Amino acid sequence: MGVLLAEVNISEGKNMELIEAVKASIFAGEPVELMDMNSNEDHNRTVFTYKGAPEAVLEATKRLAAKAIELIDMRTHKGSHPRMGAVDVVPFIPVKDVSIEEALVIARKFGAYLGNELGVPVYYYEEAAEQEYRKTLPKIRKGEYEGLEEKMQLPEWKPDEGPESFNAKSGATVTGVRFPLVAFNVNLDTDDLSIAKKIVKAVRAATGGYQCVRAIALPLIDRGIVQVSMNLINYEKTPIHRVFETIKSEASQYGVLVKDCELVGPVPVYALESVLKFYLRVHEFSMDQLYY
Amino acid sequence: MGVLLAEVNISEGKNMELIEAVKASIFAGEPVELMDMNSNEDHNRTVFTYKGAPEAVLEATKRLAAKAIELIDMRTHKGSHPRMGAVDVVPFIPVKDVSIEEALVIARKFGAYLGNELGVPVYYYEEAAEQEYRKTLPKIRKGEYEGLEEKMQLPEWKPDEGPESFNAKSGATVTGVRFPLVAFNVNLDTDDLSIAKKIVKAVRAATGGYQCVRAIALPLIDRGIVQVSMNLINYEKTPIHRVFETIKSEASQYGVLVKDCELVGPVPVYALESVLKFYLRVHEFSMDQLYY
Repeated sequence: MGVLLAEVNISEGKNMELIEAVKASIFAGEPVELMDMNSNEDHNRTVFTYKGAPEAVLEATKRLAAKAIELIDMRTHKGSHPRMGAVDVVPFIPVKDVSIEEALVIARKFGAYLGNELGVPVYYYEEAAEQEYRKTLPKIRKGEYEGLEEKMQLPEWKPDEGPESFNAKSGATVTGVRFPLVAFNVNLDTDDLSIAKKIVKAVRAATGGYQCVRAIALPLIDRGIVQVSMNLINYEKTPIHRVFETIKSEASQYGVLVKDCELVGPVPVYALESVLKFYLRVHEFSMDQLYY
Repeated sequence: MGVLLAEVNISEGKNMELIEAVKASIFAGEPVELMDMNSNEDHNRTVFTYKGAPEAVLEATKRLAAKAIELIDMRTHKGSHPRMGAVDVVPFIPVKDVSIEEALVIARKFGAYLGNELGVPVYYYEEAAEQEYRKTLPKIRKGEYEGLEEKMQLPEWKPDEGPESFNAKSGATVTGVRFPLVAFNVNLDTDDLSIAKKIVKAVRAATGGYQCVRAIALPLIDRGIVQVSMNLINYEKTPIHRVFETIKSEASQYGVLVKDCELVGPVPVYALESVLKFYLRVHEFSMDQLYY
């Protein structure tokens, strides 16, 4: 059975009564599994992460959005995190046996519901984006809630769903589909940041490296070493082991070794499949053999 | 929350009505998750594999055993698989956040229930064995059901629980605790079986190798190569990567490469932790970061 994950960002991180009411709406139907809920007071923002069968996740997300749209008023919202709507960003993330195409169907049903039923302007991003210039969240959200009324009047920022006029209470929502991220850092046994920068250039898409790698170079001051900090945005197309082996190889030309590495935050177990196949050569192994 | 697995072997593999009644008893209480159920007509045997909270697994196993003891009569049982009782073998296997000691408490409660409430003689094996000579299943089961009445009269084969006299209807039950097995095969790019045999000698416990490795050498006739076929009986003490790297190294002295490998059957996800830490150097990684 397919598993889809939703990561819903709403613009309220302090009013626990409101947050609990929104949370309760997730469970008022076919079951989904709440994996994480994170409220940040400074950001004044809460992120709900849950997963389940694609249709169950869609219905839970519609209920959640209806409740958040009802209770949150953007006219009084303040917070340090960029945002443009009460239901700010809703990525749907295929976890297991769900194709990008199936997830897109869910994201578009959700967008149509928000637009047509709740009267909220909707922008599709990432895999759901219909135009390249509207693909990334920062581009869509630039100007934030305060600049939205003006931005929506530009023809190139006409919403994908819902009213073309500004919704002062609810702002606008960005939704779409993205692949699960893997946050992978490689720590180099040197204090020379220029070496980490050269390696970043070698591996990231923007400078000719791997298509699905975003990377920056950082000093780890406390440890006196440097780090290549990465987001792998599609572990099927650009697997962890390949990036790691390339970094080892690139570092070796400077006589630099890899000290250690970090996998940060949640890691989809399916990202380990290619790691196992590469290092243990178990090419017939199926992830269905794993038990927990 | 801790997860314990039970792998219950009963002596019936043909009568589906009986098997279904036994299966139903598993679910007549606090929930456990049935992972696998395998009936074999030739063996005339069914294996139920399920997991859950330790106490839930204990109660499910007590219900299952009571039903199987009620319905199965060993006096008429025939099958090609060695067996000595209606409820033949019941290993409890710690999967997650359950210590061997906690699993032993469950196994002993189960043994006491079988012996005292159901009147079935019980032998403890593997981690639960009280004497070294009674540690392995083949030693306890030698002579099978047909030889049991006589065997039980020997002082060294007095049961650990239950009546000291033969129970003709139910035979005897072997229960205990073992660690999850990992079946791992390494295929060598040679047709020379003597090389696989030398490597088996190098890695298995019986001949001075790793403590928790059982290994044999096999020819893979169809592929024209040879295999080192292994059971890793404790992946924490003797991890997969260490055995694999040793085999690569040992093979190299004969100029032989590893062609590929196989992980066979169910693999506990926790066995991958050391593999990831070794190959990706992610020493701070916690398996709790994985999602499915």
